[in-house]
Amino acid sequence: VSFAKITAADLAYFATVLAPARVLTDAEHVARCARDETEDFCHPPEVVLQPVSAEEISAILRYCNTRKISVTPRGAGTGLSGGALALHGGVSLDTRRMNRILHLDERNFQVTAEPGVITQELQEAVREKGLFYPPDPASKGSSFIGGNVSENSGGPKALKYGVVKDYVLSLEAVLPSGEIISTGAATLKNSTGYNLTQLLVGSEGTLAVITKITLRLIPAVPHDLTLLVPFRSAAEACEAVNAIFLAGIAPSALEFMERDAIEWAARYTSTAVDLPQDIAAHLLIELDGPEMERLYGEAEKVADALARFDVGEILFADTADQKAALWNLRRKVGEAVKSHSAYKEIDTVVPRAELPVLLQKVKAIGARHGFRSVCYGHAGDGNLHVNIIKDAMSAGDWITRLPHGVHELFTEVIALGGTLSGEHGIGVVARDYMHLAFAPAALDVMRGIKAVFDPNGILNPGKIFPQEKAAS
Amino acid sequence: VSFAKITAADLAYFATVLAPARVLTDAEHVARCARDETEDFCHPPEVVLQPVSAEEISAILRYCNTRKISVTPRGAGTGLSGGALALHGGVSLDTRRMNRILHLDERNFQVTAEPGVITQELQEAVREKGLFYPPDPASKGSSFIGGNVSENSGGPKALKYGVVKDYVLSLEAVLPSGEIISTGAATLKNSTGYNLTQLLVGSEGTLAVITKITLRLIPAVPHDLTLLVPFRSAAEACEAVNAIFLAGIAPSALEFMERDAIEWAARYTSTAVDLPQDIAAHLLIELDGPEMERLYGEAEKVADALARFDVGEILFADTADQKAALWNLRRKVGEAVKSHSAYKEIDTVVPRAELPVLLQKVKAIGARHGFRSVCYGHAGDGNLHVNIIKDAMSAGDWITRLPHGVHELFTEVIALGGTLSGEHGIGVVARDYMHLAFAPAALDVMRGIKAVFDPNGILNPGKIFPQEKAAS
Repeated sequence: VSFAKITAADLAYFATVLAPARVLTDAEHVARCARDETEDFCHPPEVVLQPVSAEEISAILRYCNTRKISVTPRGAGTGLSGGALALHGGVSLDTRRMNRILHLDERNFQVTAEPGVITQELQEAVREKGLFYPPDPASKGSSFIGGNVSENSGGPKALKYGVVKDYVLSLEAVLPSGEIISTGAATLKNSTGYNLTQLLVGSEGTLAVITKITLRLIPAVPHDLTLLVPFRSAAEACEAVNAIFLAGIAPSALEFMERDAIEWAARYTSTAVDLPQDIAAHLLIELDGPEMERLYGEAEKVADALARFDVGEILFADTADQKAALWNLRRKVGEAVKSHSAYKEIDTVVPRAELPVLLQKVKAIGARHGFRSVCYGHAGDGNLHVNIIKDAMSAGDWITRLPHGVHELFTEVIALGGTLSGEHGIGVVARDYMHLAFAPAALDVMRGIKAVFDPNGILNPGKIFPQEKAAS
Repeated sequence: VSFAKITAADLAYFATVLAPARVLTDAEHVARCARDETEDFCHPPEVVLQPVSAEEISAILRYCNTRKISVTPRGAGTGLSGGALALHGGVSLDTRRMNRILHLDERNFQVTAEPGVITQELQEAVREKGLFYPPDPASKGSSFIGGNVSENSGGPKALKYGVVKDYVLSLEAVLPSGEIISTGAATLKNSTGYNLTQLLVGSEGTLAVITKITLRLIPAVPHDLTLLVPFRSAAEACEAVNAIFLAGIAPSALEFMERDAIEWAARYTSTAVDLPQDIAAHLLIELDGPEMERLYGEAEKVADALARFDVGEILFADTADQKAALWNLRRKVGEAVKSHSAYKEIDTVVPRAELPVLLQKVKAIGARHGFRSVCYGHAGDGNLHVNIIKDAMSAGDWITRLPHGVHELFTEVIALGGTLSGEHGIGVVARDYMHLAFAPAALDVMRGIKAVFDPNGILNPGKIFPQEKAAS
């Protein structure tokens, strides 16, 4: 695939579509849009465009489609699979100026927003009306709702409340042809034609540019309680996860953190954490519901279910400060790992009960290839973020051995009934393993769908689909 | 579009793929597969094939794809949009022999089944293990899970627990080319490529033939309580629906029935129902949860929320017999209407708070065109089944005026933020109104997707897509 380089004439055209101040080629904007939060990738676009409407995006896409200029839609750049990286240069379509909440429909428990609204700001706006938008990726303080939709993000509360896809009722999106379509309706049920809404959710900006998002909301849940449970064995912590569900408890979050994860996050955030030498991992468990009384009862049931494991002293957090401190620590693990060393993060997901086997496989593969790994994640969903740490490994070993290890790990994950990504998306980081998850005929169907939306392949090229044979 | 007629050579080939006893051309099988539960449509297939495996289906599709023979997948024939009707003759692909529950994974709260398993049997099998599969279409006693997936069915409990699409984790399906693909993984979270699972759910057998279904399950909910609330005004009953939600109550079901609906169902099922002359409509409300005590409290909150409406005496049903009687009545409304007169059912859905306006529009359009209508449905989801009754209308008026009325109604529904079908699918009954719900560019995308899966258009031809300009 080859794309046209952007010329002075192209820039002049963009300046007629957008205000010239929103056609940006300066070093600062280009450098910002060259990166997201994925490893240390850097792919500068040739120009950053900041549209404010679907109509502007329509004009941009129509032009780029004709000119064969690649267009990479961009949210806040907090993605972990490289979705916002302009691999082929071209246009970085920066949605930060499309940041309005268009309609908060309190009567119908719905909100319609532009893609550049910050996730947490959307959550706070609906909470003021007694409503709740649960998906809460670790980056929610800066991530955009449009990016969350494009990657089908999760977060801790996905366990009880579902991921982004479970909240999107309808989308407005612009096709590469410039046509503006609406995919669904503002209804809780919909059996009207193919589900284009769910096809666009998680499509990583490769099919269309999302310009309007209608989400369902639920009533706010007034009470919650957090437990931090230290385990002397990481394997036992993983086993305990399913034991909690089998005991009939449905936590609103159930996170696993290996010792290194919590230790590094504590250091990174300068938080004092009491971490006895013999503790190998923690579970961070949140219970929520309409009555505090009932939550204390459930917390006791959790403690009972954990009694047969070798756990340390359980920390109950029920004040706002205590809870905030624990969850801040959890949310900062990713950044802490990133600051520690070069690393490769693998967003594995398996059926929940297979988590202990997965952890064991991760460590065995690491031992075989000489990798150190730090694991943490949304254990209740079987979603384990495996971070392979470069540390003192040689650059040569890192480059030659890593793909083998990742290939082995994904092979094991799929054998366990799992798949390549639970919530980060495929992007560039997992594209060359897609043939492990899908038969050639299924990948061909996906390529066919891509061609229906984007026959010239201008939208976010290089993402999702395998570019080369993976190491085997 | 024209399809090949089935020849003796074709039948001979099918008999080599299937056991000859599963290649059926006798009058009885053809007559059974000529109909579903949609109005009085009758479209006999040329042959009924009863495969028992994905491999057999693969061979059938590969052959029919080459020969351009149309293939219409069929579940139990309980559909209400004509999905199982072989409009172009050809093969009726009858899945009734693929009726095994393949794996009930108690550890992971999942079940994998073939498409021909009866919905209620699946529900009962998982309930024995303390698990719950909520979607419960009225036909659950005979409908197949494969048909439910193909139409993205709902039912009363969709209100609290979601529709079929919210439970499907992964599908195995056969493409018209004969390729067998798997669409997802047995995981609760999945951001791995385009969501082919959700694309196939609700695709009405037009893209691929589903051969294996993996569903997530939830823990069984031990207690429930049902309330039957009579209203002196149908408009007020509709207004009361949203009042219940705004009062902070989340019922597990909230059904609306006009007087005629309950009266006809009572007669049809020979059930004695006390129905004072001044009652115009009922709400049937179910509350469920882990504690009976709490449900009584919620029932009081419901009664409080309804105090400002003109309601009759509320019937509380908390014994199994009482509850079963009420829900049986509700489930039989559809059959009762069907037995009463020729009719046209419209599966409207709007944002919940717009229900009172919808009902008013239905009656106004009816008055304008001389239609009588009986309305009932899943009011909590804004999903109103509008049944236009032929009664004494002349055949001429029925044929000429009905499309105008339906067109007007759908136009109003869409203006309210709603769409054409909440849970029945488009099939043949709403296909000519699809241009009201989708822009030409969106319909073109759907047509493009259809061509990716099924380039020769052999799978369930004539469904979903408009065949002609609708009356305007």
